[in-house]
Amino acid sequence: MKKLINNPSDIVNQMIDGLIASSPTLLARVADSQIVIRKNLAINKVAIISGGGSGHEPAHAGFVGQGMLTAAVCGQVFTSPTPDQIFNAIKAADSGQGVFLVIKNYSGDIMNFEMAKDMAEMEGIKVDSCIVDDDIAVENSTYTQGKRGVAGTILVHKILGAASEQGASLAEIKQLSAKIIPNIKTIGVAFSGATVPEVGKPGFVLAEDEIEYGVGIHGEPGYRREKLQSSKFLAQELISKLKAAFPFQKNEQYAVLINGLGATPLMEQYVFANDVLRQLETENLNVVFTKVGNYMTAIDMAGVSLTLMKIVDNDWLEKLNYSVTTLAW
Amino acid sequence: MKKLINNPSDIVNQMIDGLIASSPTLLARVADSQIVIRKNLAINKVAIISGGGSGHEPAHAGFVGQGMLTAAVCGQVFTSPTPDQIFNAIKAADSGQGVFLVIKNYSGDIMNFEMAKDMAEMEGIKVDSCIVDDDIAVENSTYTQGKRGVAGTILVHKILGAASEQGASLAEIKQLSAKIIPNIKTIGVAFSGATVPEVGKPGFVLAEDEIEYGVGIHGEPGYRREKLQSSKFLAQELISKLKAAFPFQKNEQYAVLINGLGATPLMEQYVFANDVLRQLETENLNVVFTKVGNYMTAIDMAGVSLTLMKIVDNDWLEKLNYSVTTLAW
Repeated sequence: MKKLINNPSDIVNQMIDGLIASSPTLLARVADSQIVIRKNLAINKVAIISGGGSGHEPAHAGFVGQGMLTAAVCGQVFTSPTPDQIFNAIKAADSGQGVFLVIKNYSGDIMNFEMAKDMAEMEGIKVDSCIVDDDIAVENSTYTQGKRGVAGTILVHKILGAASEQGASLAEIKQLSAKIIPNIKTIGVAFSGATVPEVGKPGFVLAEDEIEYGVGIHGEPGYRREKLQSSKFLAQELISKLKAAFPFQKNEQYAVLINGLGATPLMEQYVFANDVLRQLETENLNVVFTKVGNYMTAIDMAGVSLTLMKIVDNDWLEKLNYSVTTLAW
Repeated sequence: MKKLINNPSDIVNQMIDGLIASSPTLLARVADSQIVIRKNLAINKVAIISGGGSGHEPAHAGFVGQGMLTAAVCGQVFTSPTPDQIFNAIKAADSGQGVFLVIKNYSGDIMNFEMAKDMAEMEGIKVDSCIVDDDIAVENSTYTQGKRGVAGTILVHKILGAASEQGASLAEIKQLSAKIIPNIKTIGVAFSGATVPEVGKPGFVLAEDEIEYGVGIHGEPGYRREKLQSSKFLAQELISKLKAAFPFQKNEQYAVLINGLGATPLMEQYVFANDVLRQLETENLNVVFTKVGNYMTAIDMAGVSLTLMKIVDNDWLEKLNYSVTTLAW
């Protein structure tokens, strides 16, 4: 697998340099860190921090900006950031109203974010957090107890970021996170494995006519391999899993996120979007928000994930539509 | 190559369906056509139309919206739209102030857009056009006399779209296009070929350690194949070609567009952006605008292109920064 890089061990550092250099009015780097932070911090608002391993770009640094994340902590590729990095992000982001951490459900992330939370609280910074576990494909996985956190995390960033921008308190943001996360569910299908630059070959290999349902964003095993199917068939399979997990009720409102995993052309993502939206119509669901594109990738994995969010409160939809200034939303 | 599609021959039609279904407040489809048009047309402003073969998503439909394109005509994959499709787009987009066509320099596109222009003028619609030929890699190519039109076209859309939004006349937009196009130059490097869905296999194949400089966005031949190099080395090679083509003068202002060709992760594009921006700094150029991401792709080609635009007039920079409502800018 050919990579457009210099040195695999310096890829995250150079990526952040490139990100900051190309967005000098929007983003800054906290000195001596792998933390991307808003250039102009909001005053007297709760800071929202996310992060995790790199390799999921534009997540998470592409969502830093007014109305969304205050900062993103960028770990090495597919590796949790260290507690001291997260602690530094908390210190840099806090404007006195406290800091809220959005953590994807991976054991390493949880351990390190919780440790950073403890360190910050010892310095008198108010910190709270939520754990996103939207991937319904499997229970427990390579790096996870319970369900994995995947593309639905972006919707959490968006809604909590809007709440912060609108002046919500740390306690209100915590409550909101507890309400929205159970209503966000994701499932994906992989057409190819991803190549971690330091490894240099794909994490798994599928045959030329083979796909795998439910693969994680670090290449964790899914729930079934089978022959390549049509977009329509794949949409049916993923929707049937989501239908059972929610379960769907007629006339409910849903937001839809169709997320490319990295190497699948946007043309194909829109073909898939068409199949998804038609089938949700036949389920008599009311799709009130749709987004299509590469938001939470897995380096160069080919494939796509489908996230549905049940919009129980119209305020959530308003927050999804609230204006932001970020690179990637 | 696995494709997330249903029927290769219906891919563009279904892509447009998916695009419209997922952006119902922003975009509409002109009935019985492959034309994507703004839902709310500007009144009394010059319409800007672009288009060409599909397979370059988000180009061009992703740039339809307030402040940028009025409509995009989507041909079959890597195939010019027909004159009657373009003619229908002109009729649908015109609000009485005339229509301006942004054409990439491919023989088929020029022939069909010119024919449509003639048809529209016979019906009394004022039409003018420009031809974008920003790719400095080669002179003449598989489908082109002269130089090819590639990612720099997006900057033309952006600047002319802002001019239209600001109330420029058809003649003023024509003059502006004639000034900016010679100041936009692009060159790319491919890591892999693209697979046209109806063909089912890559248009060309590179060895596992091989790259090709100057490949076109339909896989047209470039100027040299060699062993894979570092991002820094590739940036040097592409900048050296651009340096000679402009040529660079100290303290000039430039806009930079780093464009992923489809399958290259954003992480790597930012690593490359870092190398490009550092090297332009050593050339004593003043980079006043940067954009990084997938804007003009070649289906699932891996690789990247580098576009520089010399900002001769600060008004061009203002127009690059002018606010827009599109899916993909």
